[in-house]
Amino acid sequence: MPIVPSANPAVDTADVAALLDRGKTLSTPVLRTVVDRLAAPMDTVAAYHFGWIDEQGRPADGDGGKAVRPALALLSAEAAGAAPEAGIPGAVAVELVHNFSLLHDDLMDGDEQRRHRDTVWKVYGPAQAILVGDALFALANEVLLELGTVEAGRATRRLTTASRKLIDGQAQDISYEHRERVTVEQCLEMEGNKTGALLACACSIGAVLGGADDRTADTLEAYGYHLGLAFQAVDDLLGIWGDPQSTGKQTWSDLRQRKKSLPVVAALAAGGRASERLGELLAADAKSSDFDSFSEEEFATRAALIEEAGGREWTSQEARRQHTIAVEALHGVDMPERVREQLTALADFVVVRKR
Amino acid sequence: MPIVPSANPAVDTADVAALLDRGKTLSTPVLRTVVDRLAAPMDTVAAYHFGWIDEQGRPADGDGGKAVRPALALLSAEAAGAAPEAGIPGAVAVELVHNFSLLHDDLMDGDEQRRHRDTVWKVYGPAQAILVGDALFALANEVLLELGTVEAGRATRRLTTASRKLIDGQAQDISYEHRERVTVEQCLEMEGNKTGALLACACSIGAVLGGADDRTADTLEAYGYHLGLAFQAVDDLLGIWGDPQSTGKQTWSDLRQRKKSLPVVAALAAGGRASERLGELLAADAKSSDFDSFSEEEFATRAALIEEAGGREWTSQEARRQHTIAVEALHGVDMPERVREQLTALADFVVVRKR
Repeated sequence: MPIVPSANPAVDTADVAALLDRGKTLSTPVLRTVVDRLAAPMDTVAAYHFGWIDEQGRPADGDGGKAVRPALALLSAEAAGAAPEAGIPGAVAVELVHNFSLLHDDLMDGDEQRRHRDTVWKVYGPAQAILVGDALFALANEVLLELGTVEAGRATRRLTTASRKLIDGQAQDISYEHRERVTVEQCLEMEGNKTGALLACACSIGAVLGGADDRTADTLEAYGYHLGLAFQAVDDLLGIWGDPQSTGKQTWSDLRQRKKSLPVVAALAAGGRASERLGELLAADAKSSDFDSFSEEEFATRAALIEEAGGREWTSQEARRQHTIAVEALHGVDMPERVREQLTALADFVVVRKR
Repeated sequence: MPIVPSANPAVDTADVAALLDRGKTLSTPVLRTVVDRLAAPMDTVAAYHFGWIDEQGRPADGDGGKAVRPALALLSAEAAGAAPEAGIPGAVAVELVHNFSLLHDDLMDGDEQRRHRDTVWKVYGPAQAILVGDALFALANEVLLELGTVEAGRATRRLTTASRKLIDGQAQDISYEHRERVTVEQCLEMEGNKTGALLACACSIGAVLGGADDRTADTLEAYGYHLGLAFQAVDDLLGIWGDPQSTGKQTWSDLRQRKKSLPVVAALAAGGRASERLGELLAADAKSSDFDSFSEEEFATRAALIEEAGGREWTSQEARRQHTIAVEALHGVDMPERVREQLTALADFVVVRKR
């Protein structure tokens, strides 16, 4: 049972799997070549992060993530009438920025697990997490700019804008953890920055490299931005109610980190008995010195109150609402019908995924 | 008495002060406007780092550093026959990358003081140091790419190359701290990456923005690269024998951090009684659990052995040697004689400075 009942029950999972697979197959060899440029030991640390080797340096067939962004970047090139291959440098650049942010965020948030494995700062120490993150960020620009074309310059500019928003979003996310009240609007703005901006860029970067004009690129970014908001709403649901076996994270992961995610802020804003009780508990938690030793039951109680106050259902509806806006935006671009169907299928997948 | 006896005793300090001042005066207002774009609280943290406000948020007239790089970027534009103002976005971008690296390096190295004040991670915590560093790095590309010109694309590409080398250099620097033996060649390679590359970029970026061809830019980079090596050799001397009142760092700063800087590796490579004794002491230090509580005298003993083994004199000569190569490179570019004299004066200053 997916965490959000499907907006489109007819998602063709085989088609989506093939798209994700194509994104990985075409972009990973380039990504590996680019990462190999890093000075030791950063190349090793990055290879571990991407799941290509294990802690002992042995080749591994690790889980490098869902790879939604590379799939989108290749479709983006096709949406502009170019070959999917035109989007490869964009796919690689966006994936580098995404992983730069994961390396730094895991350290800042103290997350010990990602993709079922210890995070880089846990294995190699904080300095390597900082350095390798920095290096991936720089490589992202390098891989685009070395194309030496006007289109690459435009793509780099969009990627830079997205990266700045990503960093703004992480700054907001961290500051909200220490704030007693966060409004639903503030949370949506943060999520738009943190997740929407880079997904938007993934959806335009292939088209820009393929020669699309700014209007086409902007419309594809609108699709990606709302897809990102749907994606993050689902992530927020998975962060509380996801199956650790699927997500690779701890149970109640976001609650353990006092994240003011959408279900939490929506529940707090809802009013009523459960909402008020939740507010009291979270306010006490913020001052509690025992928080780090809370039992499973204590987090389960908070999750149940969020659900009772309507935070879970509101977030599920929000995911479907953003999904709808995203898919509608696709009609603003004249693209091959097959590509539109595939972008729609990816949007459907984002909402029904379990990890 | 400067730490390196001058290669050119006729340095006109008033002329150098005017050049550094012009670099600051023209670039700081743009830098402040750009930093103001950051989401709260990153704008505040960055303003503290640059010395514009104090810990309580009150306006401050802090020491934002020597600002050698902005001065070079403006002269770089003039070397290409453009107005100094053409170099301003380059000056700002290079200064942003430089400060991104300071924020992250201070955290990775555990440095508690910079420019006579607590470092950002000490005041605002590690997460803010990481985030604001990331944001400044992104802003550096933004400030160039928003110019929207072909020249800006070329400048961004050079800045990206320099940034990657800077990160490689920091990775090497960190890995050398845990290594028993580092050769002089490895140390010079690391310093070329860590300091040479970005100074090289500062020296070409204004010219590129001013329309210079690649050969001119490459020659100006050669000047900047060797200037950077001279700069770093002087930094390494100051890191051991600098006056804390001038440098704003602790006494024996680099020895406290087990840095394998030039004087240390040169002394270890020299052979002889003092060199061997130094090697024994440093090997024992690496295993010592008391290292953090070492007295001033213990560091003074190590510094004296480095000097006795010839590490101080060798590094001083290396600074002068790199200075000579840098100044000679200037003859490979056809530029106004006044600009050549000013670039020479800046090179002289780098060698004789006390901080």
